[in-house]
Amino acid sequence: MGLRTSEEYLEGLRDGRTVYFRGERVPDIMAHSELRAGAEHTALDYALAEDPQYQDLFTTTMPDTGERVSRYFIPPASAEDLLRRREMIETSTREGSGIVLLIKEIGTDALFTFNLVARQVDEKYGTNYLERVQKYHTECRDRDLSMAVAQTDAKGDRSLLPSQQTHPDYYVHIVERRPDGIVVRGAKAHTTGTVFVDEVIVLPTRALSEEDKDYAVAFAIPVNTPGVKLIASPRGFSGDSMYHHPVSSEHHLVETLTIFDDVFIPNERVFLAGEWDFAGVLANTFVEFHRFTAVSYKPPLLDLFIGSASLIAVYNGIEKASHIREKVTRLIIYTETVRALSRAAAMDCKLIDGIAVPDTMTTNIAKHYFANNYHEAVRDVQDIAGALLVTGPSEADWDHAETRDDLERYLGGRKGVSTMDRMKAMNLIRDLTASDFGGYHELLAIHAEGSLEAQKITIFREYDLLRCMDLAKKAAGIEGL
Amino acid sequence: MGLRTSEEYLEGLRDGRTVYFRGERVPDIMAHSELRAGAEHTALDYALAEDPQYQDLFTTTMPDTGERVSRYFIPPASAEDLLRRREMIETSTREGSGIVLLIKEIGTDALFTFNLVARQVDEKYGTNYLERVQKYHTECRDRDLSMAVAQTDAKGDRSLLPSQQTHPDYYVHIVERRPDGIVVRGAKAHTTGTVFVDEVIVLPTRALSEEDKDYAVAFAIPVNTPGVKLIASPRGFSGDSMYHHPVSSEHHLVETLTIFDDVFIPNERVFLAGEWDFAGVLANTFVEFHRFTAVSYKPPLLDLFIGSASLIAVYNGIEKASHIREKVTRLIIYTETVRALSRAAAMDCKLIDGIAVPDTMTTNIAKHYFANNYHEAVRDVQDIAGALLVTGPSEADWDHAETRDDLERYLGGRKGVSTMDRMKAMNLIRDLTASDFGGYHELLAIHAEGSLEAQKITIFREYDLLRCMDLAKKAAGIEGL
Amino acid sequence: MGLRTSEEYLEGLRDGRTVYFRGERVPDIMAHSELRAGAEHTALDYALAEDPQYQDLFTTTMPDTGERVSRYFIPPASAEDLLRRREMIETSTREGSGIVLLIKEIGTDALFTFNLVARQVDEKYGTNYLERVQKYHTECRDRDLSMAVAQTDAKGDRSLLPSQQTHPDYYVHIVERRPDGIVVRGAKAHTTGTVFVDEVIVLPTRALSEEDKDYAVAFAIPVNTPGVKLIASPRGFSGDSMYHHPVSSEHHLVETLTIFDDVFIPNERVFLAGEWDFAGVLANTFVEFHRFTAVSYKPPLLDLFIGSASLIAVYNGIEKASHIREKVTRLIIYTETVRALSRAAAMDCKLIDGIAVPDTMTTNIAKHYFANNYHEAVRDVQDIAGALLVTGPSEADWDHAETRDDLERYLGGRKGVSTMDRMKAMNLIRDLTASDFGGYHELLAIHAEGSLEAQKITIFREYDLLRCMDLAKKAAGIEGL
Amino acid sequence: MGLRTSEEYLEGLRDGRTVYFRGERVPDIMAHSELRAGAEHTALDYALAEDPQYQDLFTTTMPDTGERVSRYFIPPASAEDLLRRREMIETSTREGSGIVLLIKEIGTDALFTFNLVARQVDEKYGTNYLERVQKYHTECRDRDLSMAVAQTDAKGDRSLLPSQQTHPDYYVHIVERRPDGIVVRGAKAHTTGTVFVDEVIVLPTRALSEEDKDYAVAFAIPVNTPGVKLIASPRGFSGDSMYHHPVSSEHHLVETLTIFDDVFIPNERVFLAGEWDFAGVLANTFVEFHRFTAVSYKPPLLDLFIGSASLIAVYNGIEKASHIREKVTRLIIYTETVRALSRAAAMDCKLIDGIAVPDTMTTNIAKHYFANNYHEAVRDVQDIAGALLVTGPSEADWDHAETRDDLERYLGGRKGVSTMDRMKAMNLIRDLTASDFGGYHELLAIHAEGSLEAQKITIFREYDLLRCMDLAKKAAGIEGL
Repeated sequence: MGLRTSEEYLEGLRDGRTVYFRGERVPDIMAHSELRAGAEHTALDYALAEDPQYQDLFTTTMPDTGERVSRYFIPPASAEDLLRRREMIETSTREGSGIVLLIKEIGTDALFTFNLVARQVDEKYGTNYLERVQKYHTECRDRDLSMAVAQTDAKGDRSLLPSQQTHPDYYVHIVERRPDGIVVRGAKAHTTGTVFVDEVIVLPTRALSEEDKDYAVAFAIPVNTPGVKLIASPRGFSGDSMYHHPVSSEHHLVETLTIFDDVFIPNERVFLAGEWDFAGVLANTFVEFHRFTAVSYKPPLLDLFIGSASLIAVYNGIEKASHIREKVTRLIIYTETVRALSRAAAMDCKLIDGIAVPDTMTTNIAKHYFANNYHEAVRDVQDIAGALLVTGPSEADWDHAETRDDLERYLGGRKGVSTMDRMKAMNLIRDLTASDFGGYHELLAIHAEGSLEAQKITIFREYDLLRCMDLAKKAAGIEGL
Repeated sequence: MGLRTSEEYLEGLRDGRTVYFRGERVPDIMAHSELRAGAEHTALDYALAEDPQYQDLFTTTMPDTGERVSRYFIPPASAEDLLRRREMIETSTREGSGIVLLIKEIGTDALFTFNLVARQVDEKYGTNYLERVQKYHTECRDRDLSMAVAQTDAKGDRSLLPSQQTHPDYYVHIVERRPDGIVVRGAKAHTTGTVFVDEVIVLPTRALSEEDKDYAVAFAIPVNTPGVKLIASPRGFSGDSMYHHPVSSEHHLVETLTIFDDVFIPNERVFLAGEWDFAGVLANTFVEFHRFTAVSYKPPLLDLFIGSASLIAVYNGIEKASHIREKVTRLIIYTETVRALSRAAAMDCKLIDGIAVPDTMTTNIAKHYFANNYHEAVRDVQDIAGALLVTGPSEADWDHAETRDDLERYLGGRKGVSTMDRMKAMNLIRDLTASDFGGYHELLAIHAEGSLEAQKITIFREYDLLRCMDLAKKAAGIEGL
Repeated sequence: MGLRTSEEYLEGLRDGRTVYFRGERVPDIMAHSELRAGAEHTALDYALAEDPQYQDLFTTTMPDTGERVSRYFIPPASAEDLLRRREMIETSTREGSGIVLLIKEIGTDALFTFNLVARQVDEKYGTNYLERVQKYHTECRDRDLSMAVAQTDAKGDRSLLPSQQTHPDYYVHIVERRPDGIVVRGAKAHTTGTVFVDEVIVLPTRALSEEDKDYAVAFAIPVNTPGVKLIASPRGFSGDSMYHHPVSSEHHLVETLTIFDDVFIPNERVFLAGEWDFAGVLANTFVEFHRFTAVSYKPPLLDLFIGSASLIAVYNGIEKASHIREKVTRLIIYTETVRALSRAAAMDCKLIDGIAVPDTMTTNIAKHYFANNYHEAVRDVQDIAGALLVTGPSEADWDHAETRDDLERYLGGRKGVSTMDRMKAMNLIRDLTASDFGGYHELLAIHAEGSLEAQKITIFREYDLLRCMDLAKKAAGIEGL
Repeated sequence: MGLRTSEEYLEGLRDGRTVYFRGERVPDIMAHSELRAGAEHTALDYALAEDPQYQDLFTTTMPDTGERVSRYFIPPASAEDLLRRREMIETSTREGSGIVLLIKEIGTDALFTFNLVARQVDEKYGTNYLERVQKYHTECRDRDLSMAVAQTDAKGDRSLLPSQQTHPDYYVHIVERRPDGIVVRGAKAHTTGTVFVDEVIVLPTRALSEEDKDYAVAFAIPVNTPGVKLIASPRGFSGDSMYHHPVSSEHHLVETLTIFDDVFIPNERVFLAGEWDFAGVLANTFVEFHRFTAVSYKPPLLDLFIGSASLIAVYNGIEKASHIREKVTRLIIYTETVRALSRAAAMDCKLIDGIAVPDTMTTNIAKHYFANNYHEAVRDVQDIAGALLVTGPSEADWDHAETRDDLERYLGGRKGVSTMDRMKAMNLIRDLTASDFGGYHELLAIHAEGSLEAQKITIFREYDLLRCMDLAKKAAGIEGL
């Protein structure tokens, strides 16, 4: 019990899980060069908790047992707690060179959600989900487990409800109910981190009607549970050369198509099973916690945008040009608006059943602002960097006697800056913005944690338009409807 | 001593001040139909302090004397104080139908500034400005005075320093130093509220060099001091018909060209007089407090945008159209981003000499975001409202037997909504966005409290680029410069 | 017959028409100070045709009779003709200080439309509309008549069809069919120029279904026809001082609520009467011609934006600042994009029944681009000008002995530029962008000639998506659906 | 003489040229799998000229000899010629799946430029450059040669002039003048297509002062000339799988660092050699022709954006959602604005010395509009497509028995669309927008043919501000300066 080391965590991934990658079954994640790098990235979570410099931020001591646990598991009870959670996420992402770890952040988003919603379901249906949830929550905390969350279903035709689809498995659903548990079937799309975690938590992706009640299912199981099959995507990491891919060669996430092939879920791990009117509540509550996580982990990548753009401007000798200052200022405004809004979402939280929930309006506005303007920020960074970003030489050209000196000679920039450092700065920017990895980030910006439309819908739905209409009526002197 | 009533305040404006308006000397503000409306608007400040509903927000009791004073005068000592100050400003502006009062907000911005800067000047120059400032501050508070701040000079050619100008009076400056005080000359442009306040506080508008040291001058005097001459601008209020101008007929500000024609300032009212290296510090410190005031008073007008746009959409029967929802959502995002950022600026304040100073970066980003996007918000509101905004009938047409029924019949909208209410909603929107008053607001958005460029300069200058460049170097594996 | 002089045109407006303005019946337009100014603005159309410098552009000689006629009436038969028409509109608008005249442009847009559509209706229904149209067209040309077009109905609840409205008269419709003509009732909203023209042409505003066939009506009649009642709007012109309103005091349009109170239309002036399936065709065809007119008359106002912003920058001494250049460049790009697209729409026209119809896609894109970005252009102009735009003195202050010299002294800018010229440049910008007139222009930008949504709907509907989808399939190697 | 076949063209690349790629000397382009694909892409130019369907567009017959030649070489003499040139470029790019060929377009841009500028240089300096140019132009045409243009120098510190740099070779310059020619040294960055062409044409990159006159050099030589060394960049093509990279596996460009290591240029191939005051003229004239080429080849890629976004929307069942229509409409507006402006630039050309030069203002506005909005278009396409773009499976997963059926089952979309076709549409979008190739396109958008700033500078510099200022003065009633 208690905190695990990063070695223990990594060792734990050798549990016989069913992982396919690039057309092959991967028997041991840690023995696979590409996947291993991803696992070592996520292992940072455990390393930071061991690090004396960060220990106080990332861990806390249980008052009853005196045991040290990861702070992620402690439900935030105040704005300060939320700010500290935000700081944990921002700090670990910064240490991960701008790439979030996401093996506890998202899982605890789900755990907090279950805590809030299970109570409501129990009240209406007389179920005992809250007890199950609390037991599971305690287990995750005490065993220091890592968790992925599988929410988005495969979905098929987006204009149809689950039960209207061509085949019934586009959304994960209950196919059998047994005394000791349920059997589920279906697939979840783009689950992040599944191959690198101990547990996978499953949530419904949308509000459901009564006809779709078998799709109203939530649960949590170990990733190596029989019938769980992960098909990992090769997207989003560009390659293993430190020269070409200074960030993505070491830091990246992996998504899976997560298939549940008649998987048995024991009752104590089932947190919703047919209570269709709570599917939407679960989905939305989770998303609100998770969007706060989102806006907490975005700024470090944007810091790298500001930093790398400023660096290459200096290396190219143009940092004093007015248009460069204009663009860097735009990047600062973009970054610090996201950061300030994410802090404001924490500071303006409200307490529900003892849990501090970030302000919905501000969280969604922050996420939408980030996502809606990301591509323009990419444009500004690339604009500052210049075309050499995508016309530069290969690493091998530096090792070749007949080309090395030419590169050294001709690719130099400002006096006093080494040509290789200039190339490294270029390669950083390309890796982050103009590569397979850069493309992955563009999609991550607009689709992870809900699309632009999802945020707009929430914002419109939650807003108190009547208050504003009443002010307008008063100002206009209208007394009627 | 203690709080004044609104009647006392208004009576106090009959002090012989020199005001010109539309080519005439105005002997008594309260006897002038247009200016009187402006004074009654600002008198709201005193009325709210008397109002039982708002008294706790707007006033507080001095611990030593037990006397009740306007809370504006109390320097904020914490984030909570700043949030409360923000709330005072937002509330009084909302009560003013979206128009700020600005007869204590800006004056106390200046007083807090003097408190912080006088200490520094005294330290360097051995002056006793802090003592003078504190005495003046106490006087304003105890006499419940209203104050304008005259900062922006007439400026002449913007590319030249004060002393390089065609004539030396484009910037206010010291023309004589006497044992008991100084004599100043020059003009300040667009000072808001001067005709409606007891005192005018003068600050330099920019950093100065030693050659310009006579321009490094700050002071405060009663508006009726001999030699002070106000030429009030007729801009920004459209007219006195409640039908045509539901807001501006009752609520508006007045700016003056504020001329100092060899005005004597007694020593106790002089807060800077030649210490040129503090002119920029004073100007910038003030602006930071004042931009926080700015982003506090902007949201109520934007609430009216959301409210009136939603109202007219309902009245026209189009509130469910997807493009209308999209535009209203944009207005919500705009408004709530300003609001959240302004709250964040308070919550992330830092304490300097016991005064809570709003976060500079967030304040400037909030102001810039507001200003940069204001015209697009105007476009969206007008787009939702429709062309009738500027093709509707005159009030007199409603009083005419041969046209009244036609208007009633043909200008109706949704069933159940009276034609006149529909017209009132239209007129509200036109008054706010498509009129002399609307034009005034557009300029207010981008130029009041500093232009867009001023905010960008502050943001770039204050930002810690090195931190970001270091992160980029680490991520890129760069160890050199 | 033949060309009329501007005096003849103005004299013709004294025809007993029923006009209400500001609550009064106006017996003689030319005797009314405000309306007279509007009429003198539109009279420019006739003056330019008499002007030797412009005669060749604005008039042409009928090959058969040798008579000189206004070129507006000649249907364009080639790209060159459309470019020349565009040039006529741009030139006359430029002479009108950026304000379109619109007493022949829009009327001939309608005449060309009738020429194209009447042929189709006749073909299907065996009517003789084309003959009527051609006779009317010839009469307008030979008598050199001015015309307004009333298209947009009062509309009531926008979510309902004409026949579903609370009362049946929100849309103009046929209330009686007689052997010699029809009787119509209803009201058209914001008809431009009605009080200044000889004829008003009426068109349906939208596609209709069979139940609404009585609303499928188009016709043309003299403005003084019994039962036609004009309630003129006071919006959009700010006042009569040349100082305060250098443009709008002399140049402005007037819109009316145009009421048809059981008006008899003789058969030869009826161009649609119940053929409901052509209502949408008429409406859309007209709109396409008219949007081309729109994008032809927009550039001169934008030229004034560029020019006045550049002028005030010079007068203020900031024209070399990089941010000023950036903003002026934005204004140039904006203006010249509209201009280039409007020229492209002409150059890419297609010939239908001998009439050159501007390219629909380009026309709509041009109009949408203009409208969607107008408010940002306003922002940039105001940003460059500065706050004095709305805090400057009144004209009367210049006439007052005690303030004149102060203004002269303190409101100066760059050396060598007179203070009054600087004020005039400010006032021009305020008049154009930050006044009742400026608000009128903002609405005109987004709502005249169809709203932003109207253009987007046309663009989406008319676009050949299949062509692009086929290219995508080929590139993706897709052979299926 | 006369047209070459694509086989002849490809065979011609086996000429012993010095090419390095990924750290290896490439003795034979056509024997290298990656580079061969690039060459086969560019060979389309020759294939289209042979294709009966396109022959008339791409070739023409010389009136004197009756010989058929590529139409690219014929200087445009009218708007129609420019439109036809535009059509050639757009057509061949469309056949290249959105990727320009650029082996004759850019070379002839340079040839037309030399034709115009050589005449001016000869006039001033008494040189015989025009004769040389014409002879070279004829040779290229008659031998049907392919050409690259190397303009952008390596540049070093961008804030310094060529002669101020740390070492003198950052810009290509003359190191020796011999009776029969000159010797040049230096490097040009990101030259497109060099490895796939017969000839490389060199132009100065900027205006120069007299001190830099040795940098004022322009010439043309065969790529296999001794001393010419090409280091090809590996950027911008993602890989060779048709599944993963449906476009870039077959269509892509290659850029080189083009090194001139004391290369001898015989006199007849030298087109500028020290006439420093024409360096800027050459650079700018070329850029204007080349930006017209740019805006001609951009639309086909944007057609693919519209098409692939519409396709995936249909496949996902969301094509009727209002926000999807809004975004597709944005993409249409974007694409057709670029297309209309590029056509307008042709139609508004001006004739100089018999050559039709596209309108500078419109060309630059078109290029700037394209570049400035490209990333937003990418965002919209990705937004419509969804996250599966970067979380989908590997090609190999489709070949594996244990995963194939799962993919088929779970990744389906709309009924009737095959899962594989849905994946192909996703992969097309990823290849175009969210990959190494997509990143390459982002940079190509903003930096090829000059950066955003370069276009803005041209637009501001070339604009007739005085015309607009005069209009403003007239409207304002200003008679002074």
